[in-house]
Formats: sequence, structure tokens, C-alpha cells
Amino acid sequence: MLDNIRVVLSHTTHPGNIGAAARAMQTMGLRHLYLVNPRHFPDAQATAMAAGADDVLQHAIVRASLDEALQGVAFTVAMTARLRDISIEVKTPREAMPQVLQEAVAHPVALLFGTEMSGLTNDEVGKAHLGVNIPSNPDFSSLNIAAAVQVIAYELSVAAAAFKPESTAIRPAPHERVEGLFAHLEKTLVEIGFFTTQNPARLMRRLRRLFSRTRLEDEEINILRGVLSTVTAYNARLKQRYAEEHPDVQEH
Amino acid sequence: MLDNIRVVLSHTTHPGNIGAAARAMQTMGLRHLYLVNPRHFPDAQATAMAAGADDVLQHAIVRASLDEALQGVAFTVAMTARLRDISIEVKTPREAMPQVLQEAVAHPVALLFGTEMSGLTNDEVGKAHLGVNIPSNPDFSSLNIAAAVQVIAYELSVAAAAFKPESTAIRPAPHERVEGLFAHLEKTLVEIGFFTTQNPARLMRRLRRLFSRTRLEDEEINILRGVLSTVTAYNARLKQRYAEEHPDVQEH
Repeated sequence: MLDNIRVVLSHTTHPGNIGAAARAMQTMGLRHLYLVNPRHFPDAQATAMAAGADDVLQHAIVRASLDEALQGVAFTVAMTARLRDISIEVKTPREAMPQVLQEAVAHPVALLFGTEMSGLTNDEVGKAHLGVNIPSNPDFSSLNIAAAVQVIAYELSVAAAAFKPESTAIRPAPHERVEGLFAHLEKTLVEIGFFTTQNPARLMRRLRRLFSRTRLEDEEINILRGVLSTVTAYNARLKQRYAEEHPDVQEH
Repeated sequence: MLDNIRVVLSHTTHPGNIGAAARAMQTMGLRHLYLVNPRHFPDAQATAMAAGADDVLQHAIVRASLDEALQGVAFTVAMTARLRDISIEVKTPREAMPQVLQEAVAHPVALLFGTEMSGLTNDEVGKAHLGVNIPSNPDFSSLNIAAAVQVIAYELSVAAAAFKPESTAIRPAPHERVEGLFAHLEKTLVEIGFFTTQNPARLMRRLRRLFSRTRLEDEEINILRGVLSTVTAYNARLKQRYAEEHPDVQEH
């Protein structure tokens, strides 16, 4: 299962942290590191802090956007220091890792870590199915990002040693297919004027949340996109007929 | 209990690791850091890597020897990457931490970490009651020392949240009292010529191991030291009588 798990570091500032995270991963048998827009990479400091964890560091994959880093992924876990104001369910590492392994039996899984200063954005958390919070001292909860990777990788490795997979009923679609649906949905909602009195970003996060919980399958995405296309087509027909019947009225 | 636990870093080479370890401790509610002969401390790099974990770093206690750092401690845990050739029982962090907390209810406990390059020496491990090994990738088991502190501190903090103390029957003596016995024992064994055909260091480690398992109480140490003093006194009397009866023979 561990081979189906990728660690995704978003917008990491200090290259030393990338190296230390690679080292933490490799000590626990995790191999796949993705970097979304790192400020400096490759970098001598990353190499120094990796301390020989070359398997991980040299094969690290750099991507320009989170969506690209999540390509092919069907279960995304957001590491978060926050417990409030977060749109998804949050578990402890010990609770979450058996679930992560269960998902990794069937498809690629991403463990998503934010920046050193501010963690993950709301939009980034919105792309995850589960939040994980490492319990910490309420007066000083600032774990170093590589230390957080170490704790999570360690918990995964301990959980993997005791893991027995369950059979699963659903086959969730990969990240890019779900994102395709959300883009289509947002476009359609704009088209029908649904957002005029609402906060579009907030509303899209709520819709994402609903569908993240559901774990959409490929076929279901096809059906939903079919519905959206039908709405657009129907609207187009209505508009055309209206234009034909009222040639004197300007479209608004 | 956490307040009765000290982290002891022996002969740390890189000050950045001291700072990162302090940060790891403070995120998990551990407060007492002891440094045995650190190469550079205080140091700007330690402060930078502590990233605000000042409670721990500024109160770190520097000692010239491990024995001084273990003063008052009645239960010492050695972190070790080795599983073989080790003289004490070795557990995983998850197995060990409830025991560590149970000890910390009654008396000070030390978690002992060795150097970046070579870990703890045999003599240092010989002063511990329990070994703890963080399970890791057999092909790349080199955890950074601050990462190891993070994993252990995290396991402690998780264990503390679920911990219920048991009542204990024995009251083990503090480190310096047990060391006093070992010094006395070694001196006496030298005196009676016990080491002539043996490897003294190895033999003392075996004796340490035996008494570490036993968890000697103060009163028991008094009794054993009484026995040792009696041996010395008896030998002195024998020698004196021999000298009186054979004034022509030189002592050898």
C-alpha cells in the first residue's frame, strides 16, 4: 500500500525542509514526493538535509499546480493545524492511517502538507476528502513541516505493519475527473445566474464538500455532467426560442 | 507525568538539531532538555531551528557528563537504532511509552539520545533500564535526531492522553545512588583480583544489566554497599594478620 501513497508539499519555502521531509519519508518506507511550486528546488540545502535519502529526493516530482500533483489520486488527506473553520472531517493520525491504507489498496492516495507559515489554503483543503490534525501543545502547536511528515510517515508505517485490508464496494474516480465535474458545475451555475446573490467561492466549497463525502465514481460523474450539459442545452434552446419570438428584445 | 520526563541529548554535533529537538519537544508538551557536552551551544542555529520554542531551549541544562545529566533520575530509556548486540530489553515506542509514563508518576525519567553519527555508546546504553527502537526502513534507517525526538515526544503525548497510572510496589533509587554502588562494586572486584582473567568493561556491563533489571531501592543499595565494605575490611584484616605472622614476606 505504501507505494500507492504520495506526499505532496505545497509551496514549500525552505529547501532544507524538503530534504528533511524526504529523509523522514525514506526512513519509513514512503517513496513518492510531489512538490507544488517549491520556492527553491533542486537546492544544495535540500540535498544536505536529505542526508542520503536520494531515492526519494532525486525522484521528487515538481508540479506547477496542486491539481497537477493530484492527477490520478482518488483520496486526498489534508494535514491541518486547524480544527475549527474546516470544511471536512478531521481525524487524528492514529485514527486516519488505517483508512489511508485501505484507500491505498485500491488507488493512489495523497497526503497534502501546506506551507511553513500558513499551512494549506481553504481552496487546497477543499480538494481533500479527510483532514488530519496532529494533536499538539495548545500553547505551542507549530510543528516543523518535516517533523509533521515524520510523525505521519511513522504512523503510516506502524499502521501498515498491523493492516488487514477490507473489501470495498465503490471505485472512486481520480482527482482530475472530479475536478472536471466541479469546473463544469461552476460554469453551469454561473450560466444560470445561481451565484448572483451568493459568495461563489464559499458556495463551491460547500458543493465540493458534499461531493467529496460521496466519493463519486466515474460513471456517476458522467451522469452528473450529462445533467449539466442538458441544462446548458435546454437554456440555449430557450434563449434561441425567446430570441426568435421577441426579435425586438436585447438579450441580458 | 510529562513534567517528570527529561530529554537528554548526548554529545550532539549540530546545534540546529538541538533547536529542532527543542521545538519537537515543546509542540508535544515536554519541557526539560539536558545537553551532555554539546559541540556548540548556545548557538544561533539552535535558536533559529527552535522557531520560538524558547521555553525549552532557554532552560536547556548543559552538563559535562551523562552521570550529571541523569542525577535524580530513576528510570532511563536509551533510544537505539540497533536491535542486536544490545544489553537491555528493547521495545517499540508504542509499547514503551505507557511504561515511561508509569515510571514518571513516581520519579524523574530520562529519554536518552546519542550522537548524529553513531548513536549511544555501549557505556551509555549500559546506564539505561530500557531500550526503545523506532521501527524503520531496513534499507534506510537513519532518522534525524530531532525527527526521532519528535516521534518519541508524539508517542508520549498520545499515550499520556489515554494513560491511567497503576500503583507501584517498589521505589527505585536515583541514578547517582546506583552509580555509587557500581563504582564501589568495581573497586571491590579490582581489590579482590576478580578481573585478572576477564574483560573488566564487559563484565561490569553484565553486572549493570543485572542490577538495572532489578531496579534497586535505596535501602538495598545500603545493604549491598555494606557487604562490599565488609569484604574490604575482612581482606584488610587478613592481610594485616598475614603481615604480622610472616614479617619476612613482601605483600604482593
